[in-house]
Amino acid sequence: MKAILVNQDKSLRWDEVPDPVPLEDEVLIRVEYAALNRADLMQREGDYPPPAGCPEWMGLEVSGEIVEMTEGAKAKSSYRIGDKVCALLGGGGYAEFVAVRYDMCMPVPQNCTMAEAAAIPEAFATAYLKLFVEGHAKAGDTLLMQAGASGLASVIIPMAKAFGLRVITTVIRDPESIRHLGADLVVDTREQNLPAILKKEEDEGRAVDIAIDCLGGQNLGDCLPYVKYGCRWIVIAALAGATATVDLKNIYKKNIRIIGSTLRSRTPEMKAGILSGLVNEVWKKVADGAIKPTVYKVLAITEAEEAHDILYRGENIGKVILKVR
Amino acid sequence: MKAILVNQDKSLRWDEVPDPVPLEDEVLIRVEYAALNRADLMQREGDYPPPAGCPEWMGLEVSGEIVEMTEGAKAKSSYRIGDKVCALLGGGGYAEFVAVRYDMCMPVPQNCTMAEAAAIPEAFATAYLKLFVEGHAKAGDTLLMQAGASGLASVIIPMAKAFGLRVITTVIRDPESIRHLGADLVVDTREQNLPAILKKEEDEGRAVDIAIDCLGGQNLGDCLPYVKYGCRWIVIAALAGATATVDLKNIYKKNIRIIGSTLRSRTPEMKAGILSGLVNEVWKKVADGAIKPTVYKVLAITEAEEAHDILYRGENIGKVILKVR
Repeated sequence: MKAILVNQDKSLRWDEVPDPVPLEDEVLIRVEYAALNRADLMQREGDYPPPAGCPEWMGLEVSGEIVEMTEGAKAKSSYRIGDKVCALLGGGGYAEFVAVRYDMCMPVPQNCTMAEAAAIPEAFATAYLKLFVEGHAKAGDTLLMQAGASGLASVIIPMAKAFGLRVITTVIRDPESIRHLGADLVVDTREQNLPAILKKEEDEGRAVDIAIDCLGGQNLGDCLPYVKYGCRWIVIAALAGATATVDLKNIYKKNIRIIGSTLRSRTPEMKAGILSGLVNEVWKKVADGAIKPTVYKVLAITEAEEAHDILYRGENIGKVILKVR
Repeated sequence: MKAILVNQDKSLRWDEVPDPVPLEDEVLIRVEYAALNRADLMQREGDYPPPAGCPEWMGLEVSGEIVEMTEGAKAKSSYRIGDKVCALLGGGGYAEFVAVRYDMCMPVPQNCTMAEAAAIPEAFATAYLKLFVEGHAKAGDTLLMQAGASGLASVIIPMAKAFGLRVITTVIRDPESIRHLGADLVVDTREQNLPAILKKEEDEGRAVDIAIDCLGGQNLGDCLPYVKYGCRWIVIAALAGATATVDLKNIYKKNIRIIGSTLRSRTPEMKAGILSGLVNEVWKKVADGAIKPTVYKVLAITEAEEAHDILYRGENIGKVILKVR
């Protein structure tokens, strides 16, 4: 089969690789669409190696058709050959086929195209992990979602709204472009100082209960004084800078938690639990249209480099998808 | 009755105050011993106000005798007038009497004197909260306990050992003086570099699962690169400095949690849950001698200022206790 490989000079090529062979409890998926994630760029740069046992090529999520099943997968799952699924991968999605444990697959939700389904696993599982598993989100909580124009925000903001949270988000251009996501307050950080706004929110009794932060940097330290007692500040990346100076007094006096949280490093058992929660609690809100995966653009798999460039340029609102077949 | 009050110039006096009146679900305790905590010094300095509804005078824990019970306390608890208890307070322990909810009281464990019992509630509840509620400690985990000569360490180290953890602790003088606590590795930070030692531990497959840190400061940021995946770094004070610069990449790549955790700010319901866990799981290890409260010195209540000076000088190993009657 073919897969996207990284050349010595970091450019990409669509080239022959060995066919994947499904191991115990795995199914083989014929990939229809693969979605991009920022982690792919880090992996391409050599900064985020895939977990042991995963293919070396990139790709954390796909949609496609089950074309082969091991005896274990047949016995333990209700999937059958021919089922359309989307799946969360340790890696290897930029390819014609991928082998994955049956419990990393999810049925394609009602009212989703296969392209939309490819946009679901990583972003929705990450959103569910952050909001509910780490964040203990409940109706009435205030969420600060950094980088409102990111792919993850395009999932988390509608999900949070669908579950009754109040959402503050940030942009660095064109607040109008994300109005449709439904955030209650969009802060344009070119013109507005986020810590000052969080202070005002706190003064008015609406301090932040949960922050989901892919930016990091000193902004994290500057915002901490204004969050609510017991706030969960969830760090998922550090695009604005890996270094933050924090006042530990804020942290211990207000019982704040700074929670490093990535989905990819979890054990398969933990991931399976997250996916199970996601299907049970969130699928119905996808089916009834309250939450919808946002596809920014679909490109051919052979255009993977151009697709990456969209992420490098930070141009996309929602997910960039590669069409494999 | 009399209680210890703070003068304008921060000196202390033993003076007349109104008698406390037990409210709904409260009991009145005739105080025998009150134990000191570092939070008392912060409160004396005006830096740590007591929660609403608590007496203005200091004191987070006492031992004594129940001398009065409300109807609510009689109906909801198995305590009777004359019972000897120790109790966790929001404040007000440096006094002849204190009123407190029945579920903030615990029976005096077998094999404990009343002076030892006064040394139990705050330190043992804090230890239990940190180790088990926040830290999810289990046998085989490696604990880093900062400030091994502190009152809290004198409880946490033996408790951790009694439950099968491996313990690394730090001192700034005389490692021999805390050998009896049973830590596996005592690091003298005058001579040894803690981050370098944690790196070595990590290289040898024994990286830190849980840190309990009353020091904070830049040491926190310098140690983070070497802790284990999923480490819980619990910040309870910042005696070495409130400011720490951290690498957020460490935090999100290793799913590290920095957890601000103070006992005092919790709701009574949360505290009651912690005390209940403590009595159910830890009392038997106190009764059989595996864990023992460490009393450094007992002074008269009228010597409260000298008692505070012992804490200010950092001289005590174990708890300093005031004898009220």
